Amino acid sequence: MRKSSQPSALLYGQAGGVTAVINASAAAVIRAAREAGVFKGIYAARYGIEGVLNESLVDTAALDEADLAALAATPGGAFGACRFDLSSAVDNPDQYDRLFEVFAAHRIGTFLYNGGNGSMDTVVRIAAAARERNYPLRCIGIPKTIDNDLAATDTAPGFGSAAKYLATSMLECAFDLAAMSKRGDSSGARLFVLETMGRNAGWLAAATALAADDDNNDGGRERCTQAPHAIILPEAHWQEEALYGRVETALARHGYCAIAVGEGARQPGGGDALAAWSASGSSYVQFGGAGHALAQKLRARFGLKTHWAIADYLQRAGGHLVSATDRAQAEAVGAAAVAAAVRGESGVMCAIERTSDAPYRWQVFSCDAASVANLERLLPAHFIAADGLHITAAARHYLRPLIAGECPPLWQANGLPRYWQADCPPLAQQLPPYRARQQRR
Amino acid sequence: MRKSSQPSALLYGQAGGVTAVINASAAAVIRAAREAGVFKGIYAARYGIEGVLNESLVDTAALDEADLAALAATPGGAFGACRFDLSSAVDNPDQYDRLFEVFAAHRIGTFLYNGGNGSMDTVVRIAAAARERNYPLRCIGIPKTIDNDLAATDTAPGFGSAAKYLATSMLECAFDLAAMSKRGDSSGARLFVLETMGRNAGWLAAATALAADDDNNDGGRERCTQAPHAIILPEAHWQEEALYGRVETALARHGYCAIAVGEGARQPGGGDALAAWSASGSSYVQFGGAGHALAQKLRARFGLKTHWAIADYLQRAGGHLVSATDRAQAEAVGAAAVAAAVRGESGVMCAIERTSDAPYRWQVFSCDAASVANLERLLPAHFIAADGLHITAAARHYLRPLIAGECPPLWQANGLPRYWQADCPPLAQQLPPYRARQQRR
Repeated sequence: MRKSSQPSALLYGQAGGVTAVINASAAAVIRAAREAGVFKGIYAARYGIEGVLNESLVDTAALDEADLAALAATPGGAFGACRFDLSSAVDNPDQYDRLFEVFAAHRIGTFLYNGGNGSMDTVVRIAAAARERNYPLRCIGIPKTIDNDLAATDTAPGFGSAAKYLATSMLECAFDLAAMSKRGDSSGARLFVLETMGRNAGWLAAATALAADDDNNDGGRERCTQAPHAIILPEAHWQEEALYGRVETALARHGYCAIAVGEGARQPGGGDALAAWSASGSSYVQFGGAGHALAQKLRARFGLKTHWAIADYLQRAGGHLVSATDRAQAEAVGAAAVAAAVRGESGVMCAIERTSDAPYRWQVFSCDAASVANLERLLPAHFIAADGLHITAAARHYLRPLIAGECPPLWQANGLPRYWQADCPPLAQQLPPYRARQQRR
Repeated sequence: MRKSSQPSALLYGQAGGVTAVINASAAAVIRAAREAGVFKGIYAARYGIEGVLNESLVDTAALDEADLAALAATPGGAFGACRFDLSSAVDNPDQYDRLFEVFAAHRIGTFLYNGGNGSMDTVVRIAAAARERNYPLRCIGIPKTIDNDLAATDTAPGFGSAAKYLATSMLECAFDLAAMSKRGDSSGARLFVLETMGRNAGWLAAATALAADDDNNDGGRERCTQAPHAIILPEAHWQEEALYGRVETALARHGYCAIAVGEGARQPGGGDALAAWSASGSSYVQFGGAGHALAQKLRARFGLKTHWAIADYLQRAGGHLVSATDRAQAEAVGAAAVAAAVRGESGVMCAIERTSDAPYRWQVFSCDAASVANLERLLPAHFIAADGLHITAAARHYLRPLIAGECPPLWQANGLPRYWQADCPPLAQQLPPYRARQQRR
């Protein structure tokens, strides 16, 4: 085989729930790959690994620096993301045949996959398959998730911006509540519930605690001085009366009580999802999310005006409220993945290591993607308050630097952020359309 | 009575649901009153007219320019807001006796009330009572409401910032949806519902239409190219099949569909609140808000992944995402109220008049507060699309300038906006505590 026919193009793909900064990783990959000067093409897959299977690839060559700057500032996943798990190579060799046919057809020698723990499983599988097939591929993972539940890395790009969004929102809602609630006048008191994402891990709900600028919440309800006055974490055990105690304390002190709840929070004492918590104590099951169920329960208990907000996509698409720290880390892991590929690494993920707490310092290193694949990092026990209903000073200490700094978008005359809406030209298809076959078992 | 004993202090109060810019009006009042040089005290009532009745007043004299700048940038109502309707002077003369005792005790000659249509009723009643009692009072209204439902004024300060928040949020969620939904692949298609505030008036839901940068939505579903693909307005009649048609069109074109719904939206064909819309078509009534009910209905109909967000307080407390136009108008009506008082006006509200559309220009004028009191301005018919499920180009034209420009807060090293958390010293109480008596009827 002549040297010139060696696979030498780079392919980048996005997977899983998108974030406010995943496109910053994409832009960093493209910039770093251009600077490396060794890639004969810098491509992106449409909708992640599905785009590889479908040979739906685009060429980023026409993007100029202004495009890349706009891309980096744009929330969502510019190339499309998928939630698609590869089969095992034993169960479904055809799937892998197809992947490598597409890689070969476009001379892909580097595949960078930007996703969460499921995507790192894809990285592990593809890297192993390439070795088995003797296909010269560097397959490298770039971390991303608002949930912050990835192992091996100190934090996952995407989380810091969602955390900043939620902490700022909780702070702002507290100002609203304080204005509308008169201390010592129960008739005007009100309750507020903010539901965050997070099915199993409570990192996002925990981040609302950053709305308070002190460490006063970890000593239990007696010292709880600022919103949020309670946090219901999916991984924490808590008791109904402990929650009501916190509510009563907050009402007495402030005239209002603000609570954050992760969407996957459990009922008091553990067990079923909070979303199915009965408002009446009967067997009647509430429809809707955890925030709604909790608000219904609190309204029934306290008889006070109770609002609830569901941040949903707003918290992970908030391109107007990006953490500069998060953005810098998203860019760093993208650039590091290119560097790792140039060094010849494969089957690794570029992770973030915290090297100093004060001042906060971090660096990027390569970890085994298998140490991340399919694992879920929950809040450690020492981050959860004794009653299960708040976070500790240690957790606040960990979280605080992740929301530092701002990256305002470019604003247009029409009052909206300027986001990248262009498209890259598709690569000409070299292969027949993909028809997924049945798995063998 | 000697000249020096003439009432000459100014009292400012906040009422109704607070906004991201009502404190900008407060700061403007304080600055303008200082500059006028004719007031012997510049006070604020705690919790609006309730603070007057309770003689709970504070002195703003110690606020320096840095305080005022911070105050102006802070969401919520720094002095506390109330929802309290005065009785009629005939039904409850004691209430008015008390108000004027407090005014007299603190030599209040000017009362500026910052609120919505209910607060303008308070302005009308107090101005009339002062005339009847021959008490020299200038009572002037300063408009405020995120709902934009005030008569006489082109827009109400507070609305523009909430509109900017919602339009930006809809735009950002559309980027998220576009990344996660593959056109032409129904298995990955998804639906999204954003519930806005607005019980009777659809201005806030309508404002999400600004996420689209064209006028393509008013011609009905055929031309609907960008999110939101449908808007359910509390004042609009709409048909279920028309909504589903819009959803199908959006799914076919984009792979996703984003819908905004005002919290007070009605069921198809009019009638009951959407919040009580059955998800199954049976008589079973859903609990929860309009967004939840709509999402349940859509999920049942289309069988697709359906998310919903409830912006709730986040949309009116978003101090980090203030419209510069809105902020300037909030300041202008505050300053104008002081000027109107100095001119000797009473029983008026400082309203905004649009003097030019392109370029957008506006000015402040005094209107009769009675022309605003207790009235509610709904979206006019020519702002609503023919099928009731979107807004027209005329509406977009009206709305667009209101979200223009940004007023970023000061950001702190901890990653949060710096908001004003200080307090003003209370005025010494001159009177016995207030005990509200029974109304005569």
